[in-house]
Amino acid sequence: MAAQKTIVGRIDREALAFTVGKDPVLDLELAEADCLGTAAHVTMLSRARLPRRLFSTADVRRVIEVLREIIRQSREGRFRITSGDQDVHLAVERRLTERLGPLGKKVHTARSRNDQVAVDLRLYGKARLIEVMDGCTALFDALAAAARRHRLTPMVGRTHLQPAMPSTVGLWAAGHAESLLDDLELLGSAYAVNDRCPLGAAAGYGVALKIDRALTARLLGFARPHYSVTYAGNARGKCEAAVLQALSQVMLTLSRLAEDLVLFSMPEFNYFRLPADLCTGSSIMPQKNNPDILELVRARAAKVLGHAAAVGGIVKALPSGYNRDLQETKECFIEGLASACASLRMMARVVKGLRVNGEALRRGFAPAVFAADRALEMVAEGVPFRDAYDRVKAHLDALQGVRPDVAVAARFGRGGAASVDSAGLEEAGRAWRRFVRRERARFRRVACRLVGPIR
Amino acid sequence: MAAQKTIVGRIDREALAFTVGKDPVLDLELAEADCLGTAAHVTMLSRARLPRRLFSTADVRRVIEVLREIIRQSREGRFRITSGDQDVHLAVERRLTERLGPLGKKVHTARSRNDQVAVDLRLYGKARLIEVMDGCTALFDALAAAARRHRLTPMVGRTHLQPAMPSTVGLWAAGHAESLLDDLELLGSAYAVNDRCPLGAAAGYGVALKIDRALTARLLGFARPHYSVTYAGNARGKCEAAVLQALSQVMLTLSRLAEDLVLFSMPEFNYFRLPADLCTGSSIMPQKNNPDILELVRARAAKVLGHAAAVGGIVKALPSGYNRDLQETKECFIEGLASACASLRMMARVVKGLRVNGEALRRGFAPAVFAADRALEMVAEGVPFRDAYDRVKAHLDALQGVRPDVAVAARFGRGGAASVDSAGLEEAGRAWRRFVRRERARFRRVACRLVGPIR
Amino acid sequence: MAAQKTIVGRIDREALAFTVGKDPVLDLELAEADCLGTAAHVTMLSRARLPRRLFSTADVRRVIEVLREIIRQSREGRFRITSGDQDVHLAVERRLTERLGPLGKKVHTARSRNDQVAVDLRLYGKARLIEVMDGCTALFDALAAAARRHRLTPMVGRTHLQPAMPSTVGLWAAGHAESLLDDLELLGSAYAVNDRCPLGAAAGYGVALKIDRALTARLLGFARPHYSVTYAGNARGKCEAAVLQALSQVMLTLSRLAEDLVLFSMPEFNYFRLPADLCTGSSIMPQKNNPDILELVRARAAKVLGHAAAVGGIVKALPSGYNRDLQETKECFIEGLASACASLRMMARVVKGLRVNGEALRRGFAPAVFAADRALEMVAEGVPFRDAYDRVKAHLDALQGVRPDVAVAARFGRGGAASVDSAGLEEAGRAWRRFVRRERARFRRVACRLVGPIR
Amino acid sequence: MAAQKTIVGRIDREALAFTVGKDPVLDLELAEADCLGTAAHVTMLSRARLPRRLFSTADVRRVIEVLREIIRQSREGRFRITSGDQDVHLAVERRLTERLGPLGKKVHTARSRNDQVAVDLRLYGKARLIEVMDGCTALFDALAAAARRHRLTPMVGRTHLQPAMPSTVGLWAAGHAESLLDDLELLGSAYAVNDRCPLGAAAGYGVALKIDRALTARLLGFARPHYSVTYAGNARGKCEAAVLQALSQVMLTLSRLAEDLVLFSMPEFNYFRLPADLCTGSSIMPQKNNPDILELVRARAAKVLGHAAAVGGIVKALPSGYNRDLQETKECFIEGLASACASLRMMARVVKGLRVNGEALRRGFAPAVFAADRALEMVAEGVPFRDAYDRVKAHLDALQGVRPDVAVAARFGRGGAASVDSAGLEEAGRAWRRFVRRERARFRRVACRLVGPIR
Repeated sequence: MAAQKTIVGRIDREALAFTVGKDPVLDLELAEADCLGTAAHVTMLSRARLPRRLFSTADVRRVIEVLREIIRQSREGRFRITSGDQDVHLAVERRLTERLGPLGKKVHTARSRNDQVAVDLRLYGKARLIEVMDGCTALFDALAAAARRHRLTPMVGRTHLQPAMPSTVGLWAAGHAESLLDDLELLGSAYAVNDRCPLGAAAGYGVALKIDRALTARLLGFARPHYSVTYAGNARGKCEAAVLQALSQVMLTLSRLAEDLVLFSMPEFNYFRLPADLCTGSSIMPQKNNPDILELVRARAAKVLGHAAAVGGIVKALPSGYNRDLQETKECFIEGLASACASLRMMARVVKGLRVNGEALRRGFAPAVFAADRALEMVAEGVPFRDAYDRVKAHLDALQGVRPDVAVAARFGRGGAASVDSAGLEEAGRAWRRFVRRERARFRRVACRLVGPIR
Repeated sequence: MAAQKTIVGRIDREALAFTVGKDPVLDLELAEADCLGTAAHVTMLSRARLPRRLFSTADVRRVIEVLREIIRQSREGRFRITSGDQDVHLAVERRLTERLGPLGKKVHTARSRNDQVAVDLRLYGKARLIEVMDGCTALFDALAAAARRHRLTPMVGRTHLQPAMPSTVGLWAAGHAESLLDDLELLGSAYAVNDRCPLGAAAGYGVALKIDRALTARLLGFARPHYSVTYAGNARGKCEAAVLQALSQVMLTLSRLAEDLVLFSMPEFNYFRLPADLCTGSSIMPQKNNPDILELVRARAAKVLGHAAAVGGIVKALPSGYNRDLQETKECFIEGLASACASLRMMARVVKGLRVNGEALRRGFAPAVFAADRALEMVAEGVPFRDAYDRVKAHLDALQGVRPDVAVAARFGRGGAASVDSAGLEEAGRAWRRFVRRERARFRRVACRLVGPIR
Repeated sequence: MAAQKTIVGRIDREALAFTVGKDPVLDLELAEADCLGTAAHVTMLSRARLPRRLFSTADVRRVIEVLREIIRQSREGRFRITSGDQDVHLAVERRLTERLGPLGKKVHTARSRNDQVAVDLRLYGKARLIEVMDGCTALFDALAAAARRHRLTPMVGRTHLQPAMPSTVGLWAAGHAESLLDDLELLGSAYAVNDRCPLGAAAGYGVALKIDRALTARLLGFARPHYSVTYAGNARGKCEAAVLQALSQVMLTLSRLAEDLVLFSMPEFNYFRLPADLCTGSSIMPQKNNPDILELVRARAAKVLGHAAAVGGIVKALPSGYNRDLQETKECFIEGLASACASLRMMARVVKGLRVNGEALRRGFAPAVFAADRALEMVAEGVPFRDAYDRVKAHLDALQGVRPDVAVAARFGRGGAASVDSAGLEEAGRAWRRFVRRERARFRRVACRLVGPIR
Repeated sequence: MAAQKTIVGRIDREALAFTVGKDPVLDLELAEADCLGTAAHVTMLSRARLPRRLFSTADVRRVIEVLREIIRQSREGRFRITSGDQDVHLAVERRLTERLGPLGKKVHTARSRNDQVAVDLRLYGKARLIEVMDGCTALFDALAAAARRHRLTPMVGRTHLQPAMPSTVGLWAAGHAESLLDDLELLGSAYAVNDRCPLGAAAGYGVALKIDRALTARLLGFARPHYSVTYAGNARGKCEAAVLQALSQVMLTLSRLAEDLVLFSMPEFNYFRLPADLCTGSSIMPQKNNPDILELVRARAAKVLGHAAAVGGIVKALPSGYNRDLQETKECFIEGLASACASLRMMARVVKGLRVNGEALRRGFAPAVFAADRALEMVAEGVPFRDAYDRVKAHLDALQGVRPDVAVAARFGRGGAASVDSAGLEEAGRAWRRFVRRERARFRRVACRLVGPIR
């Protein structure tokens, strides 16, 4: 069997292909993070109180200059990882060595590919999570706007998909908006779990050199380093699972919103009209305007749940310390983040472009929908609840002629019960928007301080 | 086909069995929560500014007296739900009606079984999540104590399960302890998501009566009511998924700890000796002391992941509004919580009773384990990293005679890199312990205020 | 910590509760299988050519007499497993010893609880799989009957849920029926995988006695014993996963059928009317007739998928040989089988009782639905396909006035393309029905030969 | 928002990117299948008894000539799908139209992209399943050879990972080999489910033209067409799930074999030595020979389970008829098949190159391992089993000095119980090998007849 030369020795070609997997493609996503990690590492090594200084300030400058170049190449799609490189870490190191000679060889001092890939994923995850949370607030805003605009537009409330109660488009939109607040809460804790710096843990047991893990963490803008080097190693996979679980919650919210829109844009309902430019045609049925995007969002919810399950399955009962199994969590992580980002973006466009057909919505009110309200009126007049319930049940025809708008206004207008606390809802959305903005600004500042502005 | 009389009409017997499922058993777990929810609901109705007062203060007192009795029965295991009752809500209502006549019939006013079961699950979940978090801090303490006690007890650090680096039992234990901190973070956000009151949302569209949802929430000690009644309905299933995902993280931590203990208590390692009273024998092999508990914890991690997957699968693409599908999330939720509680309790006992065999641990150090440290020494002396690496690789025999204790002391003792920030780790544990205590005290106070002390 | 006496020694009470789990309840399901396994085992021991005969024919008769009694008790719900028994195997052994003294103690000779539970699960699985496959053929028959009856009842064919093509209720029903044929194919292979006898493998390594595993297999009616005792052990969990995966396919079929029925029995469609006695009411909305059963089937599909995932997760990367993890697959297996059985039974009743509303179905045909057929007509007249497509797209109004029945007759009546091969479909169903009958008859014969007829 | 021109109209650029997803890359895998499908379709159209012949024999010849060219390009990696093409079907059609003008436009007559992609996936799946089954028989052969070679090489049999019983390397290998037989059984039924032809079902409701679906099926070598066009559509996703579930079983087998090898190649056991050229090094620990391949196989088992879960989640409760959700099953299907193929190939190489260390294996026998055999000896001498068990338990020291080889020979040599039916095992393997060869030959013959030999 042919063997191939790599930076860490000759490896059987088929085995190399099997072990490298999709890293040469996936790792392109991590190039910028890898450069930031390396910049922070050498900066730390130049400042840490070691018996002998490993990097002078000039060394650091030279290394960072090459890293800036790699970042630029990466942004322009010109950075390449060969199968001989195996991964982004060796690709970056090769580039540094080609340009800087022995100095390039030194950047791997006091770290391992284990903590390198870990810090890359944390940095990458941080940037993408900020984007996901931003996408959540954007969709939240679109839904909250719809909730305001259609506060009193009647829409029959369903249970078991059957018409059940008077409700409004506003209540419907507010329900989906609020779901995103819970997603943001869950994303927030995944973000916190992701916000620790593993760099300096080397292969999961630290290094025999008094490096300064707290400094590295600070330079990279992490909330803190992992308390222990062992958990810095063990957190890999686990953190990815936590992020994917939070993402799966976002996708669950989107999938339910998508399901509603698929159903209620069927011609038989015609409550909603999807933006024409977001629908696709059919090769054989010219009349169709298909909600493909909504269907794909629905399916991708299942895929993100699958990714979370896969990562959970990988991590379950894995012994402590690095195991190669963890490599396989990378694709799930990257794809899950990308899928959630894109789905949020598309759904915000769908919601913003949605046309609401008030007439069709009003036609959806069968008289029986008012039964429960009638029963409650009787209760308010002193009839015991179960008796009122039985009486209304016996005389459903008496509900003919109730008008949706009147019923809705009575229920949800001034004087009705507070079915939506709009002020609270919107303030919660604003708080998350502030969080996202602050974290994004911080993250950019960190990169800029470390390697300077790029373009 | 025979039909059975129920409180909501006659239902085909087989259909009833199919739809009721395990509720008569599962719902027993919810009896106390259901009574608290009902107590809060009638209290709110007696205080809300309604056109006509539905419950006098005396009415409320009478209802609560019966509820107290049901709680007592439930605690003593004497409360029963018949298949004719269908569920705990109708069972409690039947009891109230039997005792209080028309007054009992009135307690269902302005709510639905949808918001009843939702609030029951939120209350139940809250109590159990506090217990889970308490279990996490107890196991954390046991691991942190082991980390302190064995700070310098040598244990070979492994990657790919092969001996790789000098490490210690303390580092190993600290790594698992820190994992629980991330679990607590994730449990914390699931706790927050669970900490909203759905009562008053009725079937998910509110009621045509000016009830006071904020008051109900306050009476039950929730952080707040859901902003919208629609999301109060839609949150069901989603919240359960969030809790199960957080629980699955706890189980992942436990499964890895269990895996390590299964492996390293094999006679070939003999690093650890499990407490004898927690091991079981074999019916045919008298010599065995089997780590059954650890194996079951490992398997239950897979089951909790399965529960999370099932609930995610149920919720995915469900249309808005109540759908009966949601009933099926109940068992997953209850079982997942119970499984995590019990597993945490057992693992804390295992860790506390663990005997550490220092001699066997020291035998695990092959000389090559010191290779990386030697390479770093050379680096500190000025050799470029990749060259040092190659040189050590060529002379592995030179590492014979290095003693584990010396290597470990050099690495992790005074002067070495800070491989564990013990102070930070333990303070984080204490902060969570305070959180758990405060929430538990609050939760008890709420119940006491609502229905008075019970026994 | 208190310890409890069990047949295999004293065990810590909390540890016992944790390890025993739900076995005392779940194992009740296995009591009859356990008795059959024991009967076959002692019969084999009395006939195998051993150096010394362990059981005389009279011994066997006495043992079987007690086993028959236990089977009777079990069928009448009077058999109990205590937590001291731990499981059904020790409960049966205890009963035998109480009644037969030393002879009772001997039945465990040359086996282990590992192969006992394995054979119990295979026997139990076989009986339940036959029931599931019977349920599939019954539902298949109901759907095939509907397909015949409504061969030309127009129903709009949808893609992306939007009206797309002329189709019929018959085609719709035939599609679901055919799905069950694939399920039966997959159940068939799971049935084959389940149809091997593990008894005699003891703890997975055989016994030091020349027992006759092939005889045991024959006595119990299995296709054959496992080739190797090691796989007899390792097959546990794996076989359960295979069965659950096949069951999940059945549930996928049911979930899609359920989804269609939920949608098309909404008043906005009103294509189908569900049997009233299978719908449930609502406690607050008197007008509702809710498709709870269909929704629960849909949700239980997700649960069976979750069970399959859990068992897969338990088995993944488990070392060879028995590990206690496997106990946790039992509940998933039993529940998955029960859930599929019950769901099939309910769905057959739903389909049989379904009322089809031809008028509402015809109203569902918008003219554009005929577009593709019109394009094909033009193609048949010589217009290139893409041009025909463009022309029809430009003149959709020309399709007004096409009548569904005419279009449907042209397409699916005599002279149209063979859209359903009804003969083939129904013959395939009959073949499976014959398979089910034959296997059921065999299975009963085996039990009868082994322990005699019971009642 | 910018729009992009596609063959089916202008589509918003972002929406197109979202809907097209990875199709331009994934669909490259399907190019050859798509050409075969198109060749069969036009051949059928030229032979079917239609009112007007749509394709002359010469037309068919010209179309096939271009298809042959595309197949050649595809094999050489020169075939490209643009994002404007959207997918392989439109890419092939574009190519045909560019080369053949109006004739190219005609090939889409009487089909839809729905049945095109379905038939492509069935053909692709068939080829890859044959490869997977071939990989199973190759690994089976390697394991069966090891089982023969090491029939009496002692290896301690473990339960709960603790030494339990005398066993052999041969038994261990035979156990894993037999596991593959069950996998082949399950793959066999997935193969059968995959072996139906959907082409001619168009969008799932057939076409208004008397095409000959049976002929198409025959031309493509399928066992038969789907009975109904509706199920031809609905089978998509479901069939993929069935295949992925069978593949997950293969991966479970591999993951357990991998786990054993990871454990028992640890230096503390040293039972097995992995082939050096299949191990990888470490960048910081020169002494390591890491079992990366085994770890990746273990992890990929979790991923294939994740793919199966994702597809199950996509299909669950999907309404009848094509829904765009199904596109998302493609990647899971392709990746699952590729992953299983590659993993099987690597594991066969690992097993073939495995070095077995007899000495280390013998050292693994602690005396207590012989306890159960000793108890059985006493039983054979007339002591009741439970008493023998107790007596051995009390005098474990009496087992010192038993030699593994003697114990193993007594158990598994001539005269012992038949622990492995080697003849049966190997014959079963041969039967599957014959199946694989026959199906592969058939598949090649079909392609050759349809488009002629290519290179």
